[in-house]
Amino acid sequence: MECYLDNSATTKCSQAATEKMVELLTKEFGNPSSMHEMGMIAENEVKAAAEKIASTLKVQPKEIYFTSGGTESNNLAILGVADAAKRRGMHVITSMIEHPSVANPFHVLEERGYEVTYLPVDEQGHITLSDLQNVIRDDTILVSLMYINNEIGAIEPISEIGNWLKANYPEVVFHVDAIQAYGKILIRPKKEGIDLLSVSGHKIHGPKGSGFLYIRDKIKIHPIIFGGGQQKGMRSGTENVPAIAGLGVAAQEIYEQFDEKIAHLYELRDYFISEVSKIDGVRVNGAADHSNAPHIVSVSTKGVRAEVLLHALEDKHIYVSAGSACSSNKPAVSATLKAIGLPNDLLDATVRFSFSVHTTKEELDYALSQMNQLIPMLQKYTRH
Amino acid sequence: MECYLDNSATTKCSQAATEKMVELLTKEFGNPSSMHEMGMIAENEVKAAAEKIASTLKVQPKEIYFTSGGTESNNLAILGVADAAKRRGMHVITSMIEHPSVANPFHVLEERGYEVTYLPVDEQGHITLSDLQNVIRDDTILVSLMYINNEIGAIEPISEIGNWLKANYPEVVFHVDAIQAYGKILIRPKKEGIDLLSVSGHKIHGPKGSGFLYIRDKIKIHPIIFGGGQQKGMRSGTENVPAIAGLGVAAQEIYEQFDEKIAHLYELRDYFISEVSKIDGVRVNGAADHSNAPHIVSVSTKGVRAEVLLHALEDKHIYVSAGSACSSNKPAVSATLKAIGLPNDLLDATVRFSFSVHTTKEELDYALSQMNQLIPMLQKYTRH
Repeated sequence: MECYLDNSATTKCSQAATEKMVELLTKEFGNPSSMHEMGMIAENEVKAAAEKIASTLKVQPKEIYFTSGGTESNNLAILGVADAAKRRGMHVITSMIEHPSVANPFHVLEERGYEVTYLPVDEQGHITLSDLQNVIRDDTILVSLMYINNEIGAIEPISEIGNWLKANYPEVVFHVDAIQAYGKILIRPKKEGIDLLSVSGHKIHGPKGSGFLYIRDKIKIHPIIFGGGQQKGMRSGTENVPAIAGLGVAAQEIYEQFDEKIAHLYELRDYFISEVSKIDGVRVNGAADHSNAPHIVSVSTKGVRAEVLLHALEDKHIYVSAGSACSSNKPAVSATLKAIGLPNDLLDATVRFSFSVHTTKEELDYALSQMNQLIPMLQKYTRH
Repeated sequence: MECYLDNSATTKCSQAATEKMVELLTKEFGNPSSMHEMGMIAENEVKAAAEKIASTLKVQPKEIYFTSGGTESNNLAILGVADAAKRRGMHVITSMIEHPSVANPFHVLEERGYEVTYLPVDEQGHITLSDLQNVIRDDTILVSLMYINNEIGAIEPISEIGNWLKANYPEVVFHVDAIQAYGKILIRPKKEGIDLLSVSGHKIHGPKGSGFLYIRDKIKIHPIIFGGGQQKGMRSGTENVPAIAGLGVAAQEIYEQFDEKIAHLYELRDYFISEVSKIDGVRVNGAADHSNAPHIVSVSTKGVRAEVLLHALEDKHIYVSAGSACSSNKPAVSATLKAIGLPNDLLDATVRFSFSVHTTKEELDYALSQMNQLIPMLQKYTRH
């Protein structure tokens, strides 16, 4: 049996999204900037994708800007707002558990003279509004928080924070990294006080190299890539029409029968947590309830290094991540796991299982049966 | 008959490149950062693409950095070098006929306090080494020139300039925008003194949203997108494996039977120029000889606005560009056409025909016969 449980790293592109891409790579392959019919057809595909995406968020199509993926969306949001708003102030706020594509742009802002405050989290990985209230200032220009943490799946109180910001600090721009949340949560930027929202295509069965940034109308932001002025000058470069249209298809698909999908994922998660917790020395990180995402289970195993378990599972065709895949090519201690206060001996003993809507109970049963055999064996080796 | 003569705007993705993409979207869809087998397979695809590309340029695979396309490559090169080298000097040099994805990053550098010198061109669009020699200074850190102009097809004296720079100003970084040249010219960065080379995938029958920047080993350059540290930290973000692998395939294909392809294109060009020049009031811009690219013909027609001719041709299913497609969504007077001294009345009467290796003499005959009918008619309307 093959068992891909690394869907927070990347997902399989859907059949419909792939077909759309092939059509636009090989048949209607025009450049949207061309003034002739083939250009118009391409331009209309971009517009149609923006409409599909906008309808999943209940925002306007003109508020959707396409990027090359989640990392670029986060960079555009953070660097673009910081640059546009620096005359109002140079204080910015984020959290201690952000993905590197948020954390590193903030490190760049520090080098550029901005002051960055990093909010802590509780032991389940939750940021609190009161911590934000304690540090926000009159010269704060940007708050950037993730919706769902990519390593343990904590769902952050985005609506509560966004609405408080809109009521009390309407000038502060609120950016939300929704790369793990889009397709797992019904997001309503207008009701949640969200000004900017980053999304990646390949996490929702869309194409790699696709993504968008929702930019609320009238938010001031500077581009980070300059050229032919495509997308109202906000993101120059020939639009990646096949990937954009594929993303539109995937976005529409992921929100169809949405409640059933989420119920299915929570069922999987509840089952997996209850079974995996029975294994000696295993601990599940993050909240067990619905304040945690339905598709991520972070598992720490006493006495078994993450890499060892990962490769043992790989041998059985079970694919998982050590910590978070997005930065596993330069291994480092996970900021998230440290921030939730995980004991030191578990920091490098933590593996992430992440499900997709296509994951089945049978796959989990297979993975669990293998873990039941492997973990005691691996723990024994460690003791020697 | 359908006649796509807008290949400098974008090309049809090749069958083999498309098939490679589909395989990596739907079967081997892993994230290269994942430590398990599926991640390894994806990582190997990225490496294989870098090897394919490197061999077309006779450079090292580790010198190839993948981007989301030509615009990002140009931005990374220009903004990245300017930032990395600013302690050595803040003078940079480019030309008056660059693509907006080069020209606009230079405008950004001006805003950031750099001094930019814009080299002129002769009436065929050629930059000269002596003009560069006249303006280069001890505080010059970057020279950025295009290899082939996208509007009229002038081939610039890149080898001559690159070798002179290496001999006389070895500290100056030489960036070449090869977006119209890659696949049309055998480029040898090491022999031509080129430090950085920008390439776009969708101009060579590769995927949209793909591209690379060749960065010569040991050249200092700062990233413009920050995150998980992929591609040695130079370009964070999950690698767009399907597009990268598709680009690898397209790069290999475009340089197969290369001499025949170029001979075919020059044959088409020579034929088209000789026939189109017979039409009353028509003038071809740029050199007629091989100091001009084989795939671009810029045609000015007295008394016929470019848009009018473009739409008249479109009616006959002949697709061309007015000026250059890359910025035609914000029409402006072409800097290139002004720089070559085109008379004012022809500035908005210029249309670009651009061929691909798949273009046939039959298609050109069809286009020529339509133009022979349309142009006298359109000229008559204008006179009224």
